[in-house]
Amino acid sequence: MSNTRALNFNAGPASLPFAALERAREELLDFEKSGMSVMEHSHRGKVYEKVHHEAIALVKKHLGVGDAEQDWEVLFLQGGASQAFAQIPMNFLERGKSADYIVTGAWGEKAVSEAKAASSFGCGEPRVAATTVKDKSYVRVPRQDELSLGSGAAYLHCTSNETIHGVEYALDASTPFPTSDAPLFCDMSSDIFGRRIDVSKFSLIYAGAQKNIGPSGVTIVAAKKSILAAGRKDLPAIFQYRTHAENQSLYNTPPTFGIYLVRNVLQWLEGQGGVPGMEERNRKKAGALYEAIEGSGGFYRCPVDKACRSIMNVVWRLPTPELEEEFVKEAQAQRMVGLKGHRSVGGIRASIYNAVEPAWCDALASFMKDFASKKG
Amino acid sequence: MSNTRALNFNAGPASLPFAALERAREELLDFEKSGMSVMEHSHRGKVYEKVHHEAIALVKKHLGVGDAEQDWEVLFLQGGASQAFAQIPMNFLERGKSADYIVTGAWGEKAVSEAKAASSFGCGEPRVAATTVKDKSYVRVPRQDELSLGSGAAYLHCTSNETIHGVEYALDASTPFPTSDAPLFCDMSSDIFGRRIDVSKFSLIYAGAQKNIGPSGVTIVAAKKSILAAGRKDLPAIFQYRTHAENQSLYNTPPTFGIYLVRNVLQWLEGQGGVPGMEERNRKKAGALYEAIEGSGGFYRCPVDKACRSIMNVVWRLPTPELEEEFVKEAQAQRMVGLKGHRSVGGIRASIYNAVEPAWCDALASFMKDFASKKG
Repeated sequence: MSNTRALNFNAGPASLPFAALERAREELLDFEKSGMSVMEHSHRGKVYEKVHHEAIALVKKHLGVGDAEQDWEVLFLQGGASQAFAQIPMNFLERGKSADYIVTGAWGEKAVSEAKAASSFGCGEPRVAATTVKDKSYVRVPRQDELSLGSGAAYLHCTSNETIHGVEYALDASTPFPTSDAPLFCDMSSDIFGRRIDVSKFSLIYAGAQKNIGPSGVTIVAAKKSILAAGRKDLPAIFQYRTHAENQSLYNTPPTFGIYLVRNVLQWLEGQGGVPGMEERNRKKAGALYEAIEGSGGFYRCPVDKACRSIMNVVWRLPTPELEEEFVKEAQAQRMVGLKGHRSVGGIRASIYNAVEPAWCDALASFMKDFASKKG
Repeated sequence: MSNTRALNFNAGPASLPFAALERAREELLDFEKSGMSVMEHSHRGKVYEKVHHEAIALVKKHLGVGDAEQDWEVLFLQGGASQAFAQIPMNFLERGKSADYIVTGAWGEKAVSEAKAASSFGCGEPRVAATTVKDKSYVRVPRQDELSLGSGAAYLHCTSNETIHGVEYALDASTPFPTSDAPLFCDMSSDIFGRRIDVSKFSLIYAGAQKNIGPSGVTIVAAKKSILAAGRKDLPAIFQYRTHAENQSLYNTPPTFGIYLVRNVLQWLEGQGGVPGMEERNRKKAGALYEAIEGSGGFYRCPVDKACRSIMNVVWRLPTPELEEEFVKEAQAQRMVGLKGHRSVGGIRASIYNAVEPAWCDALASFMKDFASKKG
């Protein structure tokens, strides 16, 4: 690893495994002795197709919907979770039907808002089955008994990890993923592959790549074949998930270089003990930061309920906004970047996705202790 | 230039300027001494934003809608022309209205088909104002007097260059771009920046990046501000072009690395004499191939009308499919790749976008002569 490397706590686009980048650099001008960059290859040619299918297989494997489970499809799409917010109701929320949404942060809000807008051109209506908003903020996920589920809902939608608020679902038995009679759809943009999940609880999972999987510009949608088959057929072909499933994500030109990088990242992940290895690593990384917060005698405060504290986005406050600004500045001087909280909530946020090295979290925790003892 | 470089005639994703790739390689692990790859930077940070706005400015400049013309917006989006086929009617074709489409090849067909599908969720209807299809193929663009224009059409849509059929609009005065009372929208995916165009004739231009501008995964939409402002407001925000205009293409996470490469490619283009320089180069490259066809005594046949022969995608036939196969194989042995015609039409196609070196076209022309004299 280069010792000029920044300690990158960006929320996304975010740090990528150095090994995945080094490999990309090595191969950039001449991929597999073809005399071309991988991004100059046709998406219909054998050289790229091998990479494409390898990437799909790796997503399936690490999601736990591998060859044994023939009933899942993995799609590589574009537009990020933001496009999926609209595309999901377009595909699965028929006019006259409703869908249940659980809102645990800003991304859940956006998912509802886009589903509402979709209803104006012939989709059904989203219902908020639960929201944990309080004083314009979110500090927890709802309990199952707090859900107000609609009858005959097309699906139940949740956000496994709220990147801005640092609120994560199902980190232990006290905050399990929600259940209902409807298929469970989940935005896993910021914690996919960061920890083990029981995929059998879900029917559709989606994620923008730019946090845990690769560069921005690639979206992963994984869904049961039966769900995809039941989707609406009177949409433009490009917006039907079915189209992409039938064409193995080669209906139109995919973002080939992004998918190639996803392949590199997931091969790196494999070498790190896969998702179980990552989870262990991520819990330790998060643990170091939460300990620094808890051990600060109140100088640092994490607003999130303990049972829902994200292992991907650790958020905390300092006594004043001025101290927070100073904290970010001093950290930056020590090559720690991306620590400013989201503009909508302020404070500090350390995004510690898979590619963030444990040593970076240790360095941050140590900096936190120093800063607190100096200013506290 | 590396002498191991393939002579890449791929139709897209396609050859990229070697200088743009070399620069990307040089900077891949540590962008501007930031200790991170450009793709690890936040899209909300200064380092990436500089690249983003530089890329937008370069698109404006080379499209001829530079600082002097404040009334154009340039957007960086995702989903390719395939998504724009649906998104354009969603934005601009109100229910009860119609839009005129000129069909000069497979991409024009697809644009109509997706607009028809969009009408099922509350958009107006596309009308085919002209099609030049004959025996399932396309060999020319229509004359202005062949257009059957609807009254009060929301827009008139055309495809400046049909990649599969090698049919290009307005290469000389005999085949001018169409006009009508409606604003002219144009899919320029395969010839944007390949030749000068009079942008004042158009109201909206769009293009997937993967032919003349950069890697796949980036879509450029350039439009008059007045057109964007008139777009539908009851769509999900992500599908409204307005949203992206208001947010300088930073509403959601853009495909940052792809946009960075677009920047590199357009800087290279600038050093090559800009679009006028490219046009001269492209006309010469195409000239060499068309000469080889015409000079073959009928061994090679280009089906396209002379006035519409593309300077980006040169298509031709050989006496038999067997000879065509042999041609592709022998060319491949000489490191010339991507020459097989599109599976829907067969034959040979050489895509000679901006990044294809004149020497590669000369080599191909020379190979054509040898092959013809051996087999003819």
